[in-house]
Amino acid sequence: MTTPAPNHPSAVILTIGDELLLGDRTDTNAAWLAAFLTNHGFVVERILSVGDAPTGIREGLRSALRWSGRAGVVVATGGLGPTEDDRTREVVAELFGTPLATDSDVLDELHRRFRSRGMDRLPATNHRIALVPEGAEVLWNDVGSAPGLALEGAEGRLVLLPGVPSEMKHLASERLGPVFDRWFGPRPSRSARRIVQTTGIPESALAEHLESRMPSGSGVNLAYHPSVRGVKLVFSSTGPGAEDRLTDVLRKVDSVLEAWRYESPSGDLAESVLEALRARGWRIALAESCTGGMLAARLTDIPGSSDVVLGGVVAYSDRAKVTLLDVDAEAVERGGAVSAAVAGAMAAGVARRFEAEVGVGITGIAGPGGGSPDKPVGTVWFGFRTPEREWTEPVRLPGGRSEVKVRAVQHALHRLLTDANSIHGRG
Amino acid sequence: MTTPAPNHPSAVILTIGDELLLGDRTDTNAAWLAAFLTNHGFVVERILSVGDAPTGIREGLRSALRWSGRAGVVVATGGLGPTEDDRTREVVAELFGTPLATDSDVLDELHRRFRSRGMDRLPATNHRIALVPEGAEVLWNDVGSAPGLALEGAEGRLVLLPGVPSEMKHLASERLGPVFDRWFGPRPSRSARRIVQTTGIPESALAEHLESRMPSGSGVNLAYHPSVRGVKLVFSSTGPGAEDRLTDVLRKVDSVLEAWRYESPSGDLAESVLEALRARGWRIALAESCTGGMLAARLTDIPGSSDVVLGGVVAYSDRAKVTLLDVDAEAVERGGAVSAAVAGAMAAGVARRFEAEVGVGITGIAGPGGGSPDKPVGTVWFGFRTPEREWTEPVRLPGGRSEVKVRAVQHALHRLLTDANSIHGRG
Repeated sequence: MTTPAPNHPSAVILTIGDELLLGDRTDTNAAWLAAFLTNHGFVVERILSVGDAPTGIREGLRSALRWSGRAGVVVATGGLGPTEDDRTREVVAELFGTPLATDSDVLDELHRRFRSRGMDRLPATNHRIALVPEGAEVLWNDVGSAPGLALEGAEGRLVLLPGVPSEMKHLASERLGPVFDRWFGPRPSRSARRIVQTTGIPESALAEHLESRMPSGSGVNLAYHPSVRGVKLVFSSTGPGAEDRLTDVLRKVDSVLEAWRYESPSGDLAESVLEALRARGWRIALAESCTGGMLAARLTDIPGSSDVVLGGVVAYSDRAKVTLLDVDAEAVERGGAVSAAVAGAMAAGVARRFEAEVGVGITGIAGPGGGSPDKPVGTVWFGFRTPEREWTEPVRLPGGRSEVKVRAVQHALHRLLTDANSIHGRG
Repeated sequence: MTTPAPNHPSAVILTIGDELLLGDRTDTNAAWLAAFLTNHGFVVERILSVGDAPTGIREGLRSALRWSGRAGVVVATGGLGPTEDDRTREVVAELFGTPLATDSDVLDELHRRFRSRGMDRLPATNHRIALVPEGAEVLWNDVGSAPGLALEGAEGRLVLLPGVPSEMKHLASERLGPVFDRWFGPRPSRSARRIVQTTGIPESALAEHLESRMPSGSGVNLAYHPSVRGVKLVFSSTGPGAEDRLTDVLRKVDSVLEAWRYESPSGDLAESVLEALRARGWRIALAESCTGGMLAARLTDIPGSSDVVLGGVVAYSDRAKVTLLDVDAEAVERGGAVSAAVAGAMAAGVARRFEAEVGVGITGIAGPGGGSPDKPVGTVWFGFRTPEREWTEPVRLPGGRSEVKVRAVQHALHRLLTDANSIHGRG
């Protein structure tokens, strides 16, 4: 799969930073860029990480440029910051035999941004950020200081991006398309891939369902990527007829996946839930105990969520459940805060307080403390209330505190999606 | 920092797998091994990832062995499994010019394990696992099928470990010590390190403050690791007297860092805030608009937070601010929801509703929509109320929606920490 096919230019990823070689940071940039480049029609040949020292950067760049070849590209991240140990610019200028000069547009923009943040002057160290190798294209950075750079020379083609993940992703997503189109022209899709997001079913159970329905020799490969939010399935096929083979296999497994699959451009279940609620004209309010605001945060992370999410109450204490959510104090006394009665009352109370069509109540024991033989850590009660029905349900979730919280949020989202879609919707 | 010092042998990490180059998996093995090797006295020179194809593995191994040098070691993971695309053994045997033969001890052990799991016979594909290059040492794998291998030859020294993280960690932790001791003898601790977490100040401003106080030639290296939550500083020094040099430099910069530093075992500012509030005997309630519950979620992510965090209200809509937090509807009308008056009223209202000593109000424009020339995206008003004082403050935060939210939460936590510590505490 990594042998370059015609029209699929080679790419090499170079990540720069002592913290990578010391194991202080997991290289999430490399994985993100690898997926990004694969999606943009490149064959990623190698990923190489080197330290901040100029010799390491120089040798790393030389190796990477050799591997990518004259017809490929090296995408490097890191070492573009303002401090003394950010040496990528200098090494690149030397390697490409081109002088480094202050770009006045970049410098003006830096001055402007510092002023707009109420600082009277640009720290002198920031001047380094405006140094640009002659002939390099500046890739404007809207979410941080250091711009990216794109260079072409006898040595090959090179893109430099900052190492801060949010800035790297911004520059790659927003700025690299036109650069790649200019350098490489149209690039046919490498292999056909379909990603199916699932939640609420473990990997082994999914595998059992799927493998009986995927005949060997179908020419379709299936990879499982389990995480605490669910299992991502990657179906892939290469060569002529790949799309047809995928369509055929996905048709065969579709009914099996129906109960657990969801779709969203970002891969985030919260996005699908907002869309489904919006389609019903329903607005939502959230009453959270053990998840501590994580469900509200997940939903409001999605841009444009404010037309659907009215808000929520994080009712950690029993008293808050009673005074802010109108939960019956006797119900708490009788069945405990982690119970069907309390979860249901939380959902109803928050919906009423916020005048929302949909209310969710979550109360459980995330651990590490608070468990009992009767209600061990991981016990979570959910209450749901929609204009059409209301119900409560208990779940016992595996894992430590953070896994229980993430899984509880994921469970609530999955139930909301299924319910909102149950009459009209995707079907 | 990555220049090998005497007695610190070089190491190169080679991770093998198509999924790495496709971006389907983040390379957590590399980071774990980098920290492991650093702790065992090695200088990690490079991390390289290649695909499963034999040519990629061959060229990757050649590069890695060249970089590690005859006196160093290459630690490779992946491609040792039972399936057809696991080709590492074959390539290594060829590269080291040594025949591959079935190791009867390994084969017997595999048979024994399969029988003990109630399977009557070993699947034929598993026979590949028992193939061992002549002269290689077998590293027994107690948690999976494929053993690790350690080889020494004219080409250099090479350790092969399975790619499954739990198996890789097991073999490295339990089996590699004696191999390294035999190959390299005693290896002095590489370097002394101190980590200082900061927040609320950009990297460039920190650098300006610090670099004037760190005389060049101090023998202490300083690395900046910026993220959206703040800048992590890693001070390090190698060789004799390293600890003393670090103590000396940290004493010089301590007063400069005071306003921005925080300490927590997990590196999470939320943990420091909980400790500081607990020390004052203060409990907290949170009123969040633009951060949508993220501050509550950050605080309640910390085990044992329930004695300090009473809860919160996510008041996304103006109506919720009025009805649930007793914000004056006229104040919203007059100055808008993103204003000092509303932020202050939110803090006071949530503290009163939850009967908490400390209240926080956050209202702002996270974007992408909702900005105006007057109040652009990133404008956030904070209200704070403690038993000792109450105040409001505006901040203009850079970045996109998710960065603005994370930065707003971090700002609130930083202010809470500084305030709770301002009289007694760490000082």
